Amino acid sequence: MSAGQGTGRPSGLDGYPVEVRAEVAHVRELVSRLHAELPRWGLVVWTAGNVSQRLTSADLFVIKPSGVAYDDLTPESMVVCDLDGNLVDGTRSPSSDTAAHAYVYRHMDRVGGVVHTHSTYATAWAARAEPVPCVLTMMADEFGGDVPVGPFALIGDDSIGKGIVDALATSRSPAVLMRNHGPFTIGPDATSAVKAAVMVEEVARTVHVSRQLGEPTRLSQDDIDSLYARYQNVYGQ
Amino acid sequence: MSAGQGTGRPSGLDGYPVEVRAEVAHVRELVSRLHAELPRWGLVVWTAGNVSQRLTSADLFVIKPSGVAYDDLTPESMVVCDLDGNLVDGTRSPSSDTAAHAYVYRHMDRVGGVVHTHSTYATAWAARAEPVPCVLTMMADEFGGDVPVGPFALIGDDSIGKGIVDALATSRSPAVLMRNHGPFTIGPDATSAVKAAVMVEEVARTVHVSRQLGEPTRLSQDDIDSLYARYQNVYGQ
Amino acid sequence: MSAGQGTGRPSGLDGYPVEVRAEVAHVRELVSRLHAELPRWGLVVWTAGNVSQRLTSADLFVIKPSGVAYDDLTPESMVVCDLDGNLVDGTRSPSSDTAAHAYVYRHMDRVGGVVHTHSTYATAWAARAEPVPCVLTMMADEFGGDVPVGPFALIGDDSIGKGIVDALATSRSPAVLMRNHGPFTIGPDATSAVKAAVMVEEVARTVHVSRQLGEPTRLSQDDIDSLYARYQNVYGQ
Amino acid sequence: MSAGQGTGRPSGLDGYPVEVRAEVAHVRELVSRLHAELPRWGLVVWTAGNVSQRLTSADLFVIKPSGVAYDDLTPESMVVCDLDGNLVDGTRSPSSDTAAHAYVYRHMDRVGGVVHTHSTYATAWAARAEPVPCVLTMMADEFGGDVPVGPFALIGDDSIGKGIVDALATSRSPAVLMRNHGPFTIGPDATSAVKAAVMVEEVARTVHVSRQLGEPTRLSQDDIDSLYARYQNVYGQ
Repeated sequence: MSAGQGTGRPSGLDGYPVEVRAEVAHVRELVSRLHAELPRWGLVVWTAGNVSQRLTSADLFVIKPSGVAYDDLTPESMVVCDLDGNLVDGTRSPSSDTAAHAYVYRHMDRVGGVVHTHSTYATAWAARAEPVPCVLTMMADEFGGDVPVGPFALIGDDSIGKGIVDALATSRSPAVLMRNHGPFTIGPDATSAVKAAVMVEEVARTVHVSRQLGEPTRLSQDDIDSLYARYQNVYGQ
Repeated sequence: MSAGQGTGRPSGLDGYPVEVRAEVAHVRELVSRLHAELPRWGLVVWTAGNVSQRLTSADLFVIKPSGVAYDDLTPESMVVCDLDGNLVDGTRSPSSDTAAHAYVYRHMDRVGGVVHTHSTYATAWAARAEPVPCVLTMMADEFGGDVPVGPFALIGDDSIGKGIVDALATSRSPAVLMRNHGPFTIGPDATSAVKAAVMVEEVARTVHVSRQLGEPTRLSQDDIDSLYARYQNVYGQ
Repeated sequence: MSAGQGTGRPSGLDGYPVEVRAEVAHVRELVSRLHAELPRWGLVVWTAGNVSQRLTSADLFVIKPSGVAYDDLTPESMVVCDLDGNLVDGTRSPSSDTAAHAYVYRHMDRVGGVVHTHSTYATAWAARAEPVPCVLTMMADEFGGDVPVGPFALIGDDSIGKGIVDALATSRSPAVLMRNHGPFTIGPDATSAVKAAVMVEEVARTVHVSRQLGEPTRLSQDDIDSLYARYQNVYGQ
Repeated sequence: MSAGQGTGRPSGLDGYPVEVRAEVAHVRELVSRLHAELPRWGLVVWTAGNVSQRLTSADLFVIKPSGVAYDDLTPESMVVCDLDGNLVDGTRSPSSDTAAHAYVYRHMDRVGGVVHTHSTYATAWAARAEPVPCVLTMMADEFGGDVPVGPFALIGDDSIGKGIVDALATSRSPAVLMRNHGPFTIGPDATSAVKAAVMVEEVARTVHVSRQLGEPTRLSQDDIDSLYARYQNVYGQ
């Protein structure tokens, strides 16, 4: 099943080893803090948007509760779900996008973080079902090519999750624009997925602005491959 | 009559029961605080924009005073009006949009909060008298379809209020774009109406950006109905 | 003569009555504080933009010094000039736009405050030498019609000041878009001129956005006159 | 050689005179602080963008480390490189753009500061390989004409540095738009180069907006020359 809304009383973490409970405490703090990056970079308004991170010590992930204002988010208000999206620990309902996060974790082993926003420019491309073309060196670096579009899907079953996984399985991009909906991004952890959410909005905005007054030049596939390989191998500390 | 500017000395709250005075104190604090959300989300400049909430314990509402800077708003500076827009309590003149708020409260029982802004993108659609088409799942969720346009109306009588009520009576949308003027939003309370003001600007901006480079796909009525029903029933805590 | 850059040693305020020196102290504080409104509302970057206010007790005005960062502005760093733009008091050179401010004060008795910015949207209209058409009720309220365009003029003599005065003399608007340059705004005091600078950018942006996807409807002259008369008479406290 | 990534153990500053070590301490503080101007003026997201300043007392420059978040930048985290881009002092890898900065310092004696960003509007012009035309007096003041475009160049050798130097050698502009990449700016010191980075985004945005609804008028070469000469000679304190 794919839930997204806990039913009945959550089972809690009492049955889990101490190292799991320690990781939960750490990841609650991290995921709570990372939510502040979404309004900071202008990716969300009001309570929209959510960040999750999968645990390494158990088949669980930590995600934002549903409909809580950013100012009121705390590590304690974050909720813990299993990979079917059932609430395991927490006093609030999980985000209404929990089923999509859960589906991604079940089907993409390398993914440890998922982010969803309705950021303006990425969502504008999504509403036209148009991939963002790779016309910037920073797109080659971060996305390794175009940012792909996923299908239109209604919330309530596995359609959104499956659409994300299918689109990202055939792309180097950590971001997919779900049609008429908005971007989902992935990464080895939540911090990487948040970075991808920030970057996909940045490139969606810059390429939009560029195309308003003409046609930007697409990078050649060789240049894209060269930039992507270098960036993924040597960037950072 | 429809006022919006108190004349003579306000009658004050002395004749009202203690629970009304307690609710006024609470709502003054809430409405004052909610005004800070308008500049926070980029919906207003200078002193433009106003929020009101109707009391549940009496036929009164609390609204922003006229022409006061956002930094200077306090619970004490908020004013209390009756449902004809007459000043009942407060040391300042009520917002020049008070008559429109009052008209809405008189004619829409389910409304407990009203917000008016001149937010850029919503007002840009209003200046073209063009509804925002429902091309995003978040529009289906929040607005249940297009955001409608209301008539051009001059300030000074009930024209604006009547225009708002007529447009919203035949729509699921909590927002209306008053022609050549700007958005008005409603909700069961002021917080919901502020949320609608934030969301109408967000969708007006996103759909504007999307249409700048092509035509976004409209959602089918079935999908809109399905998303709206789900969101209104299960979202939040 | 029209200066803008003090030459030689300023004469200082010693020869002025105590009430003038008291007004200078007050206006230095006001003008310094009002400069913070320019970056707050996104009207300026770096050190661009300047605010001045004329004294009521002497033929002097207080203006920003040249090339000082916003973070470093203090009441003490503000400079005092006479109506020919000569430095009277202060340890720094006056803004390079001082001659234009001085010209306005010499030729428009009712003006007590002047503001100049290069705010993005107003400057964009100015670069096309195109007035902002009156398509919004808030434009009718604040500007009483279109925002006019002034001539192209080089800095260094009275050309800019004369261009401002000529354009505003035949308009109800407190703002003029100087061609290929940017907006200048006026008011009975510096606070009003700052408000006009905020509002001209707001309407320039909103009308720009509206026109990107079609043609907004112009208000009729009767409606403009009615809105303007009402707003100028009854708005505020 | 052109490095950009230190290899092996840095030699450190022990062999340098005390005045060099004193200047390094001062410039680390300055460069660290100037990085805060990039997010402040909306020029960068996440960890993108970098500022460097050349020493006057030795053939060394101070630059941002690679991949460090803006909140975590401190004077101590800044790194010192020689003019071939080799790491001399610091515990982190230098910015991946270090080779380009080093090339500029080796080939342009008058340059004491370099800044690189991917700011939205400047990068949008760069993606179309289109210079920003000089249609604003502030462009004549700051750039002395159009903002030029440099070639497309891959990271990893001297191509980017050479492209910057070749483009700027024949222009009065302190900014160049590197094709499909983004702006690089120069100045006599890092503060000036940061100012140029702020101003190039400002003019790229304003001219973009202006051209969206028509064609702005280009300034005559005589007017540009006159404005540029005046501004470079008399502006500031």
